[in-house]
Amino acid sequence: MSSTDRKIDKLIDLLVKNATVVVPGPKIASEIGVTRFRVHNWIDDLRTQGVEIRGFPAEGYQLVTIPDILVPSLLRTELGDHPIGRNIVHFFRTDSTNAEALKLAANGAEHGTVVVAEEQTAGRGRLGRVWFSEKSSGIYTSIILRPALAPSAAPVLTLMAGLAAQKAVTTVTGLSVDIRWPNDLLVNGKKVCGILTEMSAEVDRLHAVVLGIGINVNHSLMPTELENIATSLRMEAHRGISRVQVLVTLLREIERHYQLLLKGGNKAVTGRWEAASSFAHGKRVRVVTAAGEALATTTGVEPSGALKIQYDDGRNESLVAGEVVEVK
Amino acid sequence: MSSTDRKIDKLIDLLVKNATVVVPGPKIASEIGVTRFRVHNWIDDLRTQGVEIRGFPAEGYQLVTIPDILVPSLLRTELGDHPIGRNIVHFFRTDSTNAEALKLAANGAEHGTVVVAEEQTAGRGRLGRVWFSEKSSGIYTSIILRPALAPSAAPVLTLMAGLAAQKAVTTVTGLSVDIRWPNDLLVNGKKVCGILTEMSAEVDRLHAVVLGIGINVNHSLMPTELENIATSLRMEAHRGISRVQVLVTLLREIERHYQLLLKGGNKAVTGRWEAASSFAHGKRVRVVTAAGEALATTTGVEPSGALKIQYDDGRNESLVAGEVVEVK
Repeated sequence: MSSTDRKIDKLIDLLVKNATVVVPGPKIASEIGVTRFRVHNWIDDLRTQGVEIRGFPAEGYQLVTIPDILVPSLLRTELGDHPIGRNIVHFFRTDSTNAEALKLAANGAEHGTVVVAEEQTAGRGRLGRVWFSEKSSGIYTSIILRPALAPSAAPVLTLMAGLAAQKAVTTVTGLSVDIRWPNDLLVNGKKVCGILTEMSAEVDRLHAVVLGIGINVNHSLMPTELENIATSLRMEAHRGISRVQVLVTLLREIERHYQLLLKGGNKAVTGRWEAASSFAHGKRVRVVTAAGEALATTTGVEPSGALKIQYDDGRNESLVAGEVVEVK
Repeated sequence: MSSTDRKIDKLIDLLVKNATVVVPGPKIASEIGVTRFRVHNWIDDLRTQGVEIRGFPAEGYQLVTIPDILVPSLLRTELGDHPIGRNIVHFFRTDSTNAEALKLAANGAEHGTVVVAEEQTAGRGRLGRVWFSEKSSGIYTSIILRPALAPSAAPVLTLMAGLAAQKAVTTVTGLSVDIRWPNDLLVNGKKVCGILTEMSAEVDRLHAVVLGIGINVNHSLMPTELENIATSLRMEAHRGISRVQVLVTLLREIERHYQLLLKGGNKAVTGRWEAASSFAHGKRVRVVTAAGEALATTTGVEPSGALKIQYDDGRNESLVAGEVVEVK
């Protein structure tokens, strides 16, 4: 984690808190602990990121408008004092929020720590795929959980995250959102959100789970190779969507659904998941696993999080790995 | 990983390879890429570690004897060209070889990478316990595996490691060694080896498994608080044991048993495990889990690696977590 990133966050915090007045340059410099010259350079940088800051010669700086940037201070004031989001680590740019979160977790970061980036240069998806992570259009976040559970709880934690993300997107946009097992969010049949769960563990206990969540929010178009399978909230809702609002709602819903899992057990999650996804029952799917591809019909979700399917040849299976694609 | 450690390894390698001659100081300095003064200091350090090095004024240095130090070059010449041990990272002192191995794995270290330390300052055991890691008396090693398997394979990998360690200890010492589920090695009822398996993974695939193995080799006595439950190979065999020989044999056996698992499947491992452990069938045990303690009798091992037990109240269970203690 770069300490420069932390200091720029502090600079934005300072300007946000003093948004109605002109803040003298020397005051900013001394509060952050850098030179006036450095403050001047950072303010120029922020302007290129879309943050409007007015400079008054010999007086100081005043914030005019800030764009939809996921600055910790803006998020935290909305979140209240719940564990999830109490500690937020923000990057303008990083390789992968999951990689950052796993490093933080290995160094002891507490339950609920959230990593968020405006841009990922090597965003990760499931099955070793790349996640398209355009600057400031999407939400790229990773949440560290430390449940007192075994590694076998990871699949239900991932379903829990999908439910929370669905609820958050629906609440903010009003869109109707489907969940494709295990945890892709679809709007009008196209993907708007993907979740990559990673963990560090012993054989019988989790050290940390990292829920990596990518949401396409304000992309006004998709790259050609993705346009048939992916979309953004803006493209579907036909209006710009506040990333801050989506992220804050997402973190609140993760908190709520995580408590639901801890108190109600796996079935509290898988029961709700079955009600929330058109893929739970009677969906015709192509099943893609390491063993190959086959056609099947879904028949429900196990309490473990596995997807129950019946292959066209009559065999039943509970799917733990792999993916399913709707067949029309 | 400290680059100084790597350079000291290089210095020892150089002295080992030229053991019959006096090596000029400037030659050593230029081959390692440090000053002559630094070479002089390191040689003094090595002498305090028990490495006997003769200095000839104006001529150079000659290795007289080296103690039982786990230097990569000594290990590697014995290992042949198998994946396990092809890359060995040696520390005179580290906090925890598992912690180092997990960091190396996160940075892409290849399958078979081995971390080994003469001393651990924060050795880890199962269930959050400390592993007593006295300098140069034990073997403290962590092996990185990258199997194309799901996280649910971790328990059988850990049984595989226990079998390999049992075979290695018996081969080198001739002692009769029992395995207590999941993977403690016992000699005459006392523990000589513990294994801590850690992993980083997605929900449906392992990124890396770290097998952390601690063996009490040349301790001539145990700390008072451990003397009733732990012992060393030297204390049981009544002679000093070569740590190099134990470690080399261990790495070869891990290679062999890992191939057995990949080719023969879980049952090839659990079948052998059942034959190798007095705990597999009909052992009276106290079962200690997060839920509490209860008395039971063991009835076998599942292909998954879980221990089958029947509680005294008649209930059957397959134990994934927790531990068992023999009841006499």
